[in-house]
Amino acid sequence: MRLTRYFLPVLKENPAEAQIVSHRLMLRSGMIKQQAAGIYSWLPMGFKVLKNIENIVHEEQIRAGHHPMLMPTIQPAELWQESGRYNDYGREMLRIEDRHGRDMLFGPTNEEMITDIFRSHVNSYKDLPLTLYHIQWKFRDEVRPRFGVMRGREFYMKDGYNFDLTEADALHAYNRHLVSYLRTYERMGLQAIPMKAEGGPVGGDHTHEFLVLAETGESEVFYDARIEDIRLGAREIDYGSVAQCRSILDEFTALYARTDDTHEDAIFVETPEEFRRKARGIEVGQIFYFGTKYSEPMGATVQDAEGNQVPVHMGSHGIGVSRLAGAIIEASHDENGIIWPFEVAPFKVGILNMKQGDAGTDGMCEQLYSELTKAGLEPLYDDREERAGAKFATMDLVGCPWRVTVGPRGLKNGVVELTNRKTGESEEIKPELLVSKLS
Amino acid sequence: MRLTRYFLPVLKENPAEAQIVSHRLMLRSGMIKQQAAGIYSWLPMGFKVLKNIENIVHEEQIRAGHHPMLMPTIQPAELWQESGRYNDYGREMLRIEDRHGRDMLFGPTNEEMITDIFRSHVNSYKDLPLTLYHIQWKFRDEVRPRFGVMRGREFYMKDGYNFDLTEADALHAYNRHLVSYLRTYERMGLQAIPMKAEGGPVGGDHTHEFLVLAETGESEVFYDARIEDIRLGAREIDYGSVAQCRSILDEFTALYARTDDTHEDAIFVETPEEFRRKARGIEVGQIFYFGTKYSEPMGATVQDAEGNQVPVHMGSHGIGVSRLAGAIIEASHDENGIIWPFEVAPFKVGILNMKQGDAGTDGMCEQLYSELTKAGLEPLYDDREERAGAKFATMDLVGCPWRVTVGPRGLKNGVVELTNRKTGESEEIKPELLVSKLS
Repeated sequence: MRLTRYFLPVLKENPAEAQIVSHRLMLRSGMIKQQAAGIYSWLPMGFKVLKNIENIVHEEQIRAGHHPMLMPTIQPAELWQESGRYNDYGREMLRIEDRHGRDMLFGPTNEEMITDIFRSHVNSYKDLPLTLYHIQWKFRDEVRPRFGVMRGREFYMKDGYNFDLTEADALHAYNRHLVSYLRTYERMGLQAIPMKAEGGPVGGDHTHEFLVLAETGESEVFYDARIEDIRLGAREIDYGSVAQCRSILDEFTALYARTDDTHEDAIFVETPEEFRRKARGIEVGQIFYFGTKYSEPMGATVQDAEGNQVPVHMGSHGIGVSRLAGAIIEASHDENGIIWPFEVAPFKVGILNMKQGDAGTDGMCEQLYSELTKAGLEPLYDDREERAGAKFATMDLVGCPWRVTVGPRGLKNGVVELTNRKTGESEEIKPELLVSKLS
Repeated sequence: MRLTRYFLPVLKENPAEAQIVSHRLMLRSGMIKQQAAGIYSWLPMGFKVLKNIENIVHEEQIRAGHHPMLMPTIQPAELWQESGRYNDYGREMLRIEDRHGRDMLFGPTNEEMITDIFRSHVNSYKDLPLTLYHIQWKFRDEVRPRFGVMRGREFYMKDGYNFDLTEADALHAYNRHLVSYLRTYERMGLQAIPMKAEGGPVGGDHTHEFLVLAETGESEVFYDARIEDIRLGAREIDYGSVAQCRSILDEFTALYARTDDTHEDAIFVETPEEFRRKARGIEVGQIFYFGTKYSEPMGATVQDAEGNQVPVHMGSHGIGVSRLAGAIIEASHDENGIIWPFEVAPFKVGILNMKQGDAGTDGMCEQLYSELTKAGLEPLYDDREERAGAKFATMDLVGCPWRVTVGPRGLKNGVVELTNRKTGESEEIKPELLVSKLS
């Protein structure tokens, strides 16, 4: 993208309303615009990031054998009356009356609707296991929305639901989700630590939250420092393997890691003192196993091999897609701006023309722009008539993983400068080697 | 996808509530489920179709130089009070009061919000031309929703907005949109004829609707039959070329083509009688130029080259993304089911195993499944223990463009049968030639 043709309304001033760094940087880099309290537009660069995050979530869910679908934002109240949650949910639920006076609501989550879909279409244990998910806008009418997209009212969430014949099968689904979530976060450059959690309004005996360590996190977390060394990495995963998924869950949950909701000092002290850590974390996902909590009241049963009608065992699993855009920035920035992990970056390389209007630098920038575009590296070319200083500041703010600086002096020696946004390290490189270096 | 592991709840009976063929076939093939009047879930196969349509729209908009972004579903009432449309919109607008008693609404369209974004960030003519668009769920509280996703209450729409300094520039944006829309529809296997339309609540002097001819169409249309022979085809488009976009608009709008809203017999009779056609059509998009209708009351101005503050010239442009799923089926089906155009098809090839459990056919089906998957042809493998007749019926209903039938008799001769869903033509083919034949 050429900056002169893009819509990237960067702000020079720090917006007064932003209390945390991700909110500040998302506003300053022209990613979002607030439309009402806790409700945001995603401007073109913010939208690209959101899509990149969404695509990673889709890819990893499909890899785990889960089926994407899409439920509507508006739901009829009846479903929630059936499960008994219509009154429980309180004022966070956005209630709506349609023109015919029917009670509707903007879905904050979808356990009821997916259970309704299941019971309408599935009758036999032979159709199990089944996991359906969607990524859809949700609404929770928070009394005090804040921190930008981190705690908005309208937010984008992946929520998935597994249906299984037995508790054992449903626990495999639980473990499978844990593994697929770990992989999802790692691809985004995040370490998200699974921590024992509480069920809350969803319910459930088994539940883990995934927390990204960050000073601005809303939760206090207590954990064994050795957990920071555990990574899924590039290991092969067979999502059909009960044993492998179980052993990864064991590996990632053996050490102490809890939020303040579930923290118990009496257990924490069993961790050697040198490894005990107290920090803050951002919740970016949660998985639940809740058995027959919804299937029983809503009559979601199947016929088992013996011909009995039995309620299915279910769980639900959520990733905060829009919130992740903020969480990634909280975990990856410096005083100059965002530092995008490669897979999430809206543009993988910035091209900075030191002397716009100079035939040599203009020509080289155009050539690199064309080559990098062809290689799928989505360059952002700052082709404005601006001082070099302003261009450097914008590039640092926007946070492309790589920057190529093209100046007349370098070109005389047949080189451009390649800089890594994260490490700050620069090297001179022959332009013809750039694409292979970055691919 | 293996059918035994998929969630494809096909219905054997014709659903009583469906009055038109696309609604019937979408329900029967397990694409959608109604959750409330005019509100649908998109089950996995329906979702794949919706995504394919959405991706084509994105690709063609980006090719035309337009920037994708995303505005929220919930909007504050204030913006609509500013433009004067809050009261005009009547009961089709879904009005909502949040927990703090603020008036909100579920957006039926986004002229106000995009104008607000523009005026907040753009001040100079140098930042023009600019076209922003998004694809987002909308809500119109239709008094009598019907015809499935064709006239739902919650629907998925691409809406784009251009901002230009002059009327001439804005008319180029109008023409550019017309061309990009023609290309979008053609890629979906549709012929959508641009017809002179009325502005309606959006307003505007220039507006065209795009209509797909179909017996079940809601609009009566009058046109010159020779228009059916005009195609954009594979011609190279330069969206920056004012002359080329204008000449394509002229080419596609020279012949008489109007809906009942704008039809004038006195002009229609100038078309030779042999070419005069009266038919029915489905509206799948509309483009508008409305000048300063929103920019003036909302203060969306830029400084021009002479230093004057001038209101920008705008237009808006919509494609009914969810509606298109229905429109494509209306235009492309037979008595046995859907006939998907290739690019929209959720699966490009169906694999039909005539004798599930036979080592020979099972082995060949697995091999073809693996090869076709690798080639990106997204096969749907019917691996159920079912009679061949039931499998043929399901495949015809689901409507993959190609079907490969694998039976013991053919395998003895070293061939499988390849059938074109549209023409019904079959040929015997060596399995090793299949991928290259379909790629």
